[in-house]
Amino acid sequence: MEFMDQLRAPLYEALLQFKAKKPYSFHVPGHKNGMILPYKELEVYQSLLSIDLTELTGLDDLHDPSGIIQDAQQLAAAYYGAKHTYFLVGGSTLGNLTMILSSCNEGDTVLVQRNCHKSVINGLTLAKVKPVFITPQIDKESRVATGITVDMVKAAFAKYPDAKALIITNPNYYGMTMNLTAVIEAAHDYEIPVLVDEAHGAHFGVGEPFPASAVSQGADLVVQSAHKTLPAMTMASYLHFNSKLLNRGRVETFLNVLQSSSPSYPIMASLDAARAYLAKLTNDDLLEIDSDIQSFRSALNQQLSHIKVIEKGKSYTFLDPLKITIQSQCTLTGFEMQRILERQGIYTELADSHNVLMIMPLARFKDGSIIIEKIKHAFEKIPLGMSEQKQGSVPFELEPFTEIEIPHHKMDNYEVTFILLKDAENTISAQDVIPYPPGIPVIINGERINKHHIQLCRELIEAGARFQGDAENGITRIKVVNTPH
Amino acid sequence: MEFMDQLRAPLYEALLQFKAKKPYSFHVPGHKNGMILPYKELEVYQSLLSIDLTELTGLDDLHDPSGIIQDAQQLAAAYYGAKHTYFLVGGSTLGNLTMILSSCNEGDTVLVQRNCHKSVINGLTLAKVKPVFITPQIDKESRVATGITVDMVKAAFAKYPDAKALIITNPNYYGMTMNLTAVIEAAHDYEIPVLVDEAHGAHFGVGEPFPASAVSQGADLVVQSAHKTLPAMTMASYLHFNSKLLNRGRVETFLNVLQSSSPSYPIMASLDAARAYLAKLTNDDLLEIDSDIQSFRSALNQQLSHIKVIEKGKSYTFLDPLKITIQSQCTLTGFEMQRILERQGIYTELADSHNVLMIMPLARFKDGSIIIEKIKHAFEKIPLGMSEQKQGSVPFELEPFTEIEIPHHKMDNYEVTFILLKDAENTISAQDVIPYPPGIPVIINGERINKHHIQLCRELIEAGARFQGDAENGITRIKVVNTPH
Repeated sequence: MEFMDQLRAPLYEALLQFKAKKPYSFHVPGHKNGMILPYKELEVYQSLLSIDLTELTGLDDLHDPSGIIQDAQQLAAAYYGAKHTYFLVGGSTLGNLTMILSSCNEGDTVLVQRNCHKSVINGLTLAKVKPVFITPQIDKESRVATGITVDMVKAAFAKYPDAKALIITNPNYYGMTMNLTAVIEAAHDYEIPVLVDEAHGAHFGVGEPFPASAVSQGADLVVQSAHKTLPAMTMASYLHFNSKLLNRGRVETFLNVLQSSSPSYPIMASLDAARAYLAKLTNDDLLEIDSDIQSFRSALNQQLSHIKVIEKGKSYTFLDPLKITIQSQCTLTGFEMQRILERQGIYTELADSHNVLMIMPLARFKDGSIIIEKIKHAFEKIPLGMSEQKQGSVPFELEPFTEIEIPHHKMDNYEVTFILLKDAENTISAQDVIPYPPGIPVIINGERINKHHIQLCRELIEAGARFQGDAENGITRIKVVNTPH
Repeated sequence: MEFMDQLRAPLYEALLQFKAKKPYSFHVPGHKNGMILPYKELEVYQSLLSIDLTELTGLDDLHDPSGIIQDAQQLAAAYYGAKHTYFLVGGSTLGNLTMILSSCNEGDTVLVQRNCHKSVINGLTLAKVKPVFITPQIDKESRVATGITVDMVKAAFAKYPDAKALIITNPNYYGMTMNLTAVIEAAHDYEIPVLVDEAHGAHFGVGEPFPASAVSQGADLVVQSAHKTLPAMTMASYLHFNSKLLNRGRVETFLNVLQSSSPSYPIMASLDAARAYLAKLTNDDLLEIDSDIQSFRSALNQQLSHIKVIEKGKSYTFLDPLKITIQSQCTLTGFEMQRILERQGIYTELADSHNVLMIMPLARFKDGSIIIEKIKHAFEKIPLGMSEQKQGSVPFELEPFTEIEIPHHKMDNYEVTFILLKDAENTISAQDVIPYPPGIPVIINGERINKHHIQLCRELIEAGARFQGDAENGITRIKVVNTPH
C-alpha cells in the first residue's frame, strides 16, 4: 500500500460526506442525526451525533464489510503489517474474549501469563479450558510484575506439550515489555499459536523511540486498545490476525457473536482516523514528542524531591516513553499522592501503594512547567522521607507454573463460604487475591491455597499492599470452596 | 421515587461538572479530553470527547457501581418499574447474550419465538442449549411475521414441560406487538422465566398512545435498545431485571464478562439523559407527538397513490405509532422504493420486497409536507399498478414447534457442503434460510429439510421475496451437513 494512501481515512471521510448531504432520518438511532437532544445542556453531544449513523446505503456493514469499513480495516492491516485487522467497538475486552474463544476448544490446556487482564480470565471461563498460569518476573524498583522469559516459556512447553495456545500480556500496565520475539519463536517451534493482549501498545510500531508491535514480532492474534494511547474514542480497539496456525473464519464467527449488531460509527471512524494520525507522524514528530516527555521526566526528577521517576529496570527489555511512573519519596502512599494531585486538577491513570502512573500524550506536550508547579504546590506541606512500610520489599516468589484444581466455569457447581485467611491452608480458593503492587494474583480462583500463599499475603499487607476484590472481606477473610467435614 | 427526581440526569450532569474543572489528563483515553484530534477535520468529535472519560475519582465504575452510575441506573429502574436496571454499552446484542447465558445451562431445553434477532440465536449457541422454535403468526396485509399466541405458548409448555426459559421478541421490527401479559402469565404458571427482546420498544411505557413495556407486564428480563427509538447514542441499551425466578448475581457475572472494562461514558450518560427525556414528556407532549405522526400518515395515504400505509392488522394487538410501514402500489419493489427515496435525501430504516419501514421521532415532527413533496417528486415517473409478482401471497405455513437435529454449537464438528436446494430433501441444513418478508426462517441451521420447506422457498422466490445470507449461493444452493453415502 502506498504511503499517500495511509493518509486517507475513508470511513471517517464518508461519514462527513454523508452528514454534508443533510439527510432526513427515518431510521435509527432515535436522536435523528442529533436533531433531538434529550436534555437541555446536551450541546456537547450534538455535533458528534450527526455522524452517529447506522448501516445506511454506502455506509457498509461491520459484520460483512465490502466498502468503506473494509477499506479502513485494510489500511489498518497494512499499517500494522497484519494479514487482517478487525475494528472492535467493545474494547479490548471483546478482543480478548474473541482471541480465546476462536483459538481454544473446551477442555484444552492453555498457557497463560499470570498477570493478565480479567477479560483474559473471563475468556478462559467462557471457553471452558484448563489454564496453566506462568509466573512473571517482578521489577525490583517499581515492585510491579513484568513479563515472562523465553526460558520460562520453553520450560512450560516441555512440561505441557499438549498446550493449545500461549496467552501473553505485553506491555504491562506500566509500559514494561518482554523479549516477545524470542517467546513467539519458541512457541512457533512447538506450533503453538501466541495470543497477545497488547492493549497498552496500540502506538507500538509507529517508529523509534517506541518498540515494535507484537504483530511485526510474529504473534498470531494481537488486540490493541486504540483508545488507551491513540486519539480514539473509548471502546475503540483493533484485533490483528497474522496466523498460519489459526482459522480466520472462526475469529469472524465469534466477532459476529460478541460485537453489537448496531456498532457505533463514531467509534469505528475513530479507529480509522487514529491509524491515519499514526501514519502522518514523521520521524521528526516522534523525536519531538519524545524530547518533550524526556524533558518532563527530568524536571519531575530534578525539581521534586517528594518523588522519583522509575527508570528502566533489568527484569524487562523496554520502557514505553508514554508511561511515567513516579514513586513516593515522602510519607504519602501512591493512593494519597493521586488524591492530592487531583485536588490540583491533575488526573492520573493508576495508583498503587508506592507508585502513581501517568500516561503522556502521543503528541507535543508543552504544559510541563505548569504541571511541575502544580505538583510542587500539592506536595509543599508533605514531610519528606519514606514511611517504614514503604521501605519494606517482599520477595514475591510463586511456583513457576500453577494449575488450578477447579476450572472457573465449574465453580458454579460448588458451595462456597468465607473463612479467615489464616485458616485457609489446603482449601480451594473461590476468588482471586490480587495485591497492588505487584498486580499479580497471589491466589487464583480455583487454586489450592498453601502455607506460602498465606505467608506472602501477610507480608504484603505489612508492606502496605492493597488488595483488589471484595472490599469488606478484603484479605482477612477469603471465599473458599465448602468441603464437607 | 419522586417525579422531580426523575428530571435529574446525575451521570450526565457529573460529566459536565467534571469537564468544567478543565482537568489535566494523564490517563486514558489517548485523545486527552479531546485535546488531540487525530485528523484535521475532526472538530465534529471535539466537544463530545471532553466527556469521553474513564473511571476517575467521582465518576464511579459500571462494573461495581456505588455513585453516579448507580444513581442513574436506579432512576432508570424506577422509571420503568424494574427491580434493577443495568446500563449496556454493547447494544441489545450484549443484552440478549447476557439474558440467555444467565438464565440457561448447557443442555437445557429453551422455547424460542422463531422470528428472533440473530443475537438470540448466538446466545443459544454460546449457552449450548437445545432450542425449540415456536412459529409466529403472519400479518396478511404486510406479510411480515408478528408474535406468538398464548394458546401456542400453552401448547409448547404441555409438549416441553422441562423447558427452562421462554424467549420472546416483542414488538417485531415493524412495531407490531403480541398479547404479552397473557403469555407471561402462562409461563409463570409453569414457573418458567420469560426473557423479552424489547429492542424496538425502549419508549414503551412512556404513556398513551404507546403500549406498556414488557417490564410492567411481568417479564423476568427485558432488553431495550435505547438508541433505536430514544435520543441515545448507538449501542446504548437497558437490561431490566424483574424476576422472582432468576438469580440477579448471575446476570451481573455475565455482564462483567461481556461488557468492556472501559465502558464508554458518553454512551452511559446518553442512557441517563434519555430516561430523563422520557420522564419530562407530559401527556400533552405525547398527544402532540402522536397527532403529528397521524397527520403525516394520513397525508402519505391521501396524497400519494404510489403507496399505501399499512394499518393495524388482526394478527397482533397493537401497532407502535413510531413505525410507519408503506407498501408499494406501483411497479417498484420495496427495495427500489427505498433507493429512490434516498436520492431525495430521505433515508428509511428497512425495505423488503413489498414494504419500506420508516421510524418516526419521539418528538414533534413538522417536516411532513416537505417530505410528502419530496416523495411525490421521487415517484412522479413511476407507473402505478402492482406487478404480477407482488400480487401473489404465499400461505406461509410451518409446523408450530421445530426442534433442530444438530445444536448450533455442535455444528463445528461436521463437514458441510453446498448442494442444490431442490436436492436437499432429508439433509440437515447448515445455514438459516430467511426470506424477507416475512423475516422468519423457513429453514434453521441444524434443522432437517423437508419437502414442504423446499416448496415454500420456491413459492417465496416466485412471489418476489429476497433471502438473507450467502449472496452467491442464495437460495438455489444451500449449505448442508455432509452425510456419508
